Amino acid sequence: MDHRGTEFASIVKESLEGMRKIVQTRGLIAMYPASGSGAWEAAIVNTLSTGDRVLMFETGHFSRLWRQVAERFGIRVDYLPGTWRTGAVTADIEAKLSDDKNYEYKAVMVVHNETSTGTTSKIFEIRRMMNRLGHPALLMVDSVSSLGSIEYRHDEWEVDVMIASSQKGLMLPPGLAFNAISEKAMAANKAAKLPRSYWDWQELLELSRNGFFPYTPSINLIFGLREAVQMLLEEGLPNVFSRHQRHGNATRAAVRAWDLELVCEDPTEYSNTVTAVFAPAGHSADALRATILDNFDMSLGAGLSKLANQVFRIGHLGHFNDLMLAGTLAGVEMGLRLSGIPHSEGGIMAALDSLAPKSKPVVVRV
Amino acid sequence: MDHRGTEFASIVKESLEGMRKIVQTRGLIAMYPASGSGAWEAAIVNTLSTGDRVLMFETGHFSRLWRQVAERFGIRVDYLPGTWRTGAVTADIEAKLSDDKNYEYKAVMVVHNETSTGTTSKIFEIRRMMNRLGHPALLMVDSVSSLGSIEYRHDEWEVDVMIASSQKGLMLPPGLAFNAISEKAMAANKAAKLPRSYWDWQELLELSRNGFFPYTPSINLIFGLREAVQMLLEEGLPNVFSRHQRHGNATRAAVRAWDLELVCEDPTEYSNTVTAVFAPAGHSADALRATILDNFDMSLGAGLSKLANQVFRIGHLGHFNDLMLAGTLAGVEMGLRLSGIPHSEGGIMAALDSLAPKSKPVVVRV
Amino acid sequence: MDHRGTEFASIVKESLEGMRKIVQTRGLIAMYPASGSGAWEAAIVNTLSTGDRVLMFETGHFSRLWRQVAERFGIRVDYLPGTWRTGAVTADIEAKLSDDKNYEYKAVMVVHNETSTGTTSKIFEIRRMMNRLGHPALLMVDSVSSLGSIEYRHDEWEVDVMIASSQKGLMLPPGLAFNAISEKAMAANKAAKLPRSYWDWQELLELSRNGFFPYTPSINLIFGLREAVQMLLEEGLPNVFSRHQRHGNATRAAVRAWDLELVCEDPTEYSNTVTAVFAPAGHSADALRATILDNFDMSLGAGLSKLANQVFRIGHLGHFNDLMLAGTLAGVEMGLRLSGIPHSEGGIMAALDSLAPKSKPVVVRV
Amino acid sequence: MDHRGTEFASIVKESLEGMRKIVQTRGLIAMYPASGSGAWEAAIVNTLSTGDRVLMFETGHFSRLWRQVAERFGIRVDYLPGTWRTGAVTADIEAKLSDDKNYEYKAVMVVHNETSTGTTSKIFEIRRMMNRLGHPALLMVDSVSSLGSIEYRHDEWEVDVMIASSQKGLMLPPGLAFNAISEKAMAANKAAKLPRSYWDWQELLELSRNGFFPYTPSINLIFGLREAVQMLLEEGLPNVFSRHQRHGNATRAAVRAWDLELVCEDPTEYSNTVTAVFAPAGHSADALRATILDNFDMSLGAGLSKLANQVFRIGHLGHFNDLMLAGTLAGVEMGLRLSGIPHSEGGIMAALDSLAPKSKPVVVRV
Repeated sequence: MDHRGTEFASIVKESLEGMRKIVQTRGLIAMYPASGSGAWEAAIVNTLSTGDRVLMFETGHFSRLWRQVAERFGIRVDYLPGTWRTGAVTADIEAKLSDDKNYEYKAVMVVHNETSTGTTSKIFEIRRMMNRLGHPALLMVDSVSSLGSIEYRHDEWEVDVMIASSQKGLMLPPGLAFNAISEKAMAANKAAKLPRSYWDWQELLELSRNGFFPYTPSINLIFGLREAVQMLLEEGLPNVFSRHQRHGNATRAAVRAWDLELVCEDPTEYSNTVTAVFAPAGHSADALRATILDNFDMSLGAGLSKLANQVFRIGHLGHFNDLMLAGTLAGVEMGLRLSGIPHSEGGIMAALDSLAPKSKPVVVRV
Repeated sequence: MDHRGTEFASIVKESLEGMRKIVQTRGLIAMYPASGSGAWEAAIVNTLSTGDRVLMFETGHFSRLWRQVAERFGIRVDYLPGTWRTGAVTADIEAKLSDDKNYEYKAVMVVHNETSTGTTSKIFEIRRMMNRLGHPALLMVDSVSSLGSIEYRHDEWEVDVMIASSQKGLMLPPGLAFNAISEKAMAANKAAKLPRSYWDWQELLELSRNGFFPYTPSINLIFGLREAVQMLLEEGLPNVFSRHQRHGNATRAAVRAWDLELVCEDPTEYSNTVTAVFAPAGHSADALRATILDNFDMSLGAGLSKLANQVFRIGHLGHFNDLMLAGTLAGVEMGLRLSGIPHSEGGIMAALDSLAPKSKPVVVRV
Repeated sequence: MDHRGTEFASIVKESLEGMRKIVQTRGLIAMYPASGSGAWEAAIVNTLSTGDRVLMFETGHFSRLWRQVAERFGIRVDYLPGTWRTGAVTADIEAKLSDDKNYEYKAVMVVHNETSTGTTSKIFEIRRMMNRLGHPALLMVDSVSSLGSIEYRHDEWEVDVMIASSQKGLMLPPGLAFNAISEKAMAANKAAKLPRSYWDWQELLELSRNGFFPYTPSINLIFGLREAVQMLLEEGLPNVFSRHQRHGNATRAAVRAWDLELVCEDPTEYSNTVTAVFAPAGHSADALRATILDNFDMSLGAGLSKLANQVFRIGHLGHFNDLMLAGTLAGVEMGLRLSGIPHSEGGIMAALDSLAPKSKPVVVRV
Repeated sequence: MDHRGTEFASIVKESLEGMRKIVQTRGLIAMYPASGSGAWEAAIVNTLSTGDRVLMFETGHFSRLWRQVAERFGIRVDYLPGTWRTGAVTADIEAKLSDDKNYEYKAVMVVHNETSTGTTSKIFEIRRMMNRLGHPALLMVDSVSSLGSIEYRHDEWEVDVMIASSQKGLMLPPGLAFNAISEKAMAANKAAKLPRSYWDWQELLELSRNGFFPYTPSINLIFGLREAVQMLLEEGLPNVFSRHQRHGNATRAAVRAWDLELVCEDPTEYSNTVTAVFAPAGHSADALRATILDNFDMSLGAGLSKLANQVFRIGHLGHFNDLMLAGTLAGVEMGLRLSGIPHSEGGIMAALDSLAPKSKPVVVRV
């Protein structure tokens, strides 16, 4: 298919229109042939200039990586320390912004769902605080592992730049990266002095409005995107979110029944797409993961950087159903057993109790 | 691809060579573009004549259907009654053959793995009995739901005609049917008077020896067959069989833990590809199946003919692993719960105990 | 997907409904997991009895094969000799039927489009003749290589049994075979005494009315059938037929320009799906085909039985467009050249003249 | 598949090893999830600093776009004017470099195969000239539309940075971009001051040496890459190049026979992957393209920027064979006819003469 033809153009427009519904925005969406990391960089080079100050919160590994990207472009990052066991602490951000009488912070940058720890930050709470303070910083949010799985309301939460990618909640192979962009962010773009070409919003948004691109787009993935968006909208976003909630609850019920410890300490911040779990002290999470991979051909997420070998991560996002979850948790329970890791049995039963509560009124058809 | 060209011919020959390894024969294999039922008919019309007598055992629904095929061709079937809770009873067959001093029975026809009841008949025991008696009847075996999953040794067991198809242990879509044929069956073929064309072995075997067919073959499925055979041989038949054994054991452990009753009464005849389970008296197996389909998008097998609505069937064959089994059993357990069917909880735990026994020496890597 | 579930049943019904439109019938359609040859056999065993007499016309190789099937079932075939260069000769059939005062002929069996020679028989002319004579024989028609490409009107032409398959005009892999059946054929079915099971219409039609089958259907192909039928109906049958007409014309223009001889002698019987061409005397058609396969990776049809090595066949059916045809004819022209076969150059130009006539009013858009 | 697992790592390493053979280098290859334009940017930001001077040659539209990228990063580009009808003129580059006594030019940047005009520049000639002058500038080459189709020898030609992508000669969907990097380029990288993160070679090369990536790679495309590379190496690079040569020759023979004018003026610079052709004065190339698209569902390349509406482009690269080319040229010839564009007939015959010369010794097999 000719990516400069009208047929492809209409597919692009349809895909972008669908994405706006997923992102819950009426604004602009930039779509790149790139990984999600490209969209981190795009957010930065399109809105900031060398020497600008920004405020980030250390939610975990991915916030660290994003910080690194910013610093490589000469951005001065005030990186609020976190324990890796909570989301972004609004009070800590508020304290910094309150002190910033001259509005030196050009942006507050937060990871919505921190994949390395299984915590979800309260973006709307942060936005309300910023509005209360009247601080003009842009609010930039990485929703790579939340979009399409956990509630994200771009316009209502007044996010200025959102970062997302194709391979998580959108259920596609990796290779598409997105920015959703507020009017305020577009205004910042005009003043931003960092050099940019591939990531530049102006030409990209102007062309893609008509379904074209300044360079060869990821044709196959854009076809897939149209399907993925349609699947999510057919299921209905509220249903998608409650399905993930249901799976998050069941996974955490299993972890509790095993007497293992969740990385996320705050129940109001539990992630519904990934659950990070500590191996008991003295036991190697990576050995557990290897045992599970060898015996059950299932690959759990590793603990990243400072959580390396202490933590294993159970993903439950995208195209996922109750029985796949039960199979996953059965694999973990058998892996714990085979690895000789001390635990209580019956996590899988606790998950079943969560998914199919006994109190549920009995349905009998004859 | 041209099905009359040399490239396709070599794929056909390679596929048939692989099938011989799966079937454990050095003899001939006829491959039809058809369902398995076609191979039932082929076995009959190629070896028998109108008015011939044969002996069949009522293992369940599929033995009934095969009987019906035979009778439609004017074969006189002595159909030994069974309870649908055991495999073919060798002693019953022996009694009939012993009485048959004139060797009127031209064939003994048995279903190896009766999918409707989850029982596996002892083919080799039947063969040894026939040899002991010196009865010259052909031994014809339906291995549609056993081949490639449960041990089947064509040459060693001296089976004369085997019936199989593509969509079970061979993990392909339906559309290919097979006969494996002994020399004795080929001799019978020369004398057999039933009219035949599509199913006729002579022309088919002569052409397919060189990779050709008397009519357009199922090209796509034959490509798939080559792959499927290779997958099975790479895993190794003994490993394939013990994988199914392992899954059969775990499934039955779950059923026992639920305090439900297996259809198959004889532990030496348990099927390792399908487990049929009675719903408790007064409860509808079909309502349970509907609840599970609605809630978990999983389709269990129905009870067939005289077991209708009394039985549900759990398939565990083909490309299947521990975690898929655990997901399946979790779905059944939740379905029992949601349907208000009386049962003990923890079938899934019993399955885990079976799959990953606690006594297993602990493996720790650090 | 469960082939006993309601979702699949509705796909089956939809596919059969579409097939009725393609076949241009309001009657019954039997769909088998089989090759087209199976549908030949089904037509015979469902309507005839051993010893019945039928009338067939020798249009070419495929009429011979069909005759062979009939004879294997003890049918007495009067096989009217043909030259393999025309369709069925209505007058010859008429002469036989006129003599048949006792209506001994139970069926007239004709191949609509004879793939081995590239001729199309005039089915409607035969039907009118039979009606004129008031002969009650069934009219059975093999439309394997015409259905979905060349006009075929089942009800209007009062065909009693049609034979078709998936891999030609329906553009699918091989593996589905069809009978379309008139009420008169259903009546004959009740009286027909040939034994049958797999091919038996009664149970198959009864179950498939509700979307089910007496044995495992070719699930994947039935999904494909639904798509294929939809593609044909979206293009519109008249457009599909005129597309093939256009390609048949262009191919014949090329053959004439090469000064080669068509097998089909009667321009009113030219096939629009396949063109059979004589190699000049003393030249091997198979050597030409081999040269073309080696040099251009294109496989032309071989001359079959008595035309072996004298004829090559150019297929132009199914999903085919002008440029694929041009590529095909270019391959033939280059093959003629490389094989040193005497011919005039420019067949490809003649085809272009046919496809895009110079007199066509010029379209200019600026 | 887990992109942090060892199985994927070995696929990455295998793919990169294959790419080195295609690129004809023993050096480093950076592989990005991105379009080819990303690799233009990567070449610049990894080796240059704001204010650096570079020399580019105006071969056509794509050289213009690359220039634009460079200028967006503050590079001062001396853009040698070209006619868009030749490759890069070595003498013009030489004149500039000779004058550059202080070696201010940090890089010479050339498009190897200019897709907008169908010309191929003489990279090796440029390299020899640069060596003769002893000028230390890096030589950067865009081989997006030549790699894997037209001879490109990275090490022998001492190219410092090559730019390529997945969707042309590598026959994959778009989404992978590449740099091949000399040691001299790696040395320049250490000194280069442009900010960079996504495109940064250091981390990417360090990780991908072991089969990993600093961010989620395009998993699916990397699987495809392994296959594509294997296909090219199995055919053999010399055979691949001569196949494209053959198709380029035949296409140009057709254009000459039509009495149309090639954009490329120098026969030693004809592109073997794309042929750009002028519509006769007063005729719209876009109208011709629209007529061909409407009538034959074939999409020809448009004239770009200053050649808009004057030129149409015939692509003949990647997975392409003689008959596809013949079909393509037939489509053009019929399109010329239908559009009323003045031309001589018989381009397709000239192409056949080129592909299958009459003088070729006749092969007859009987």
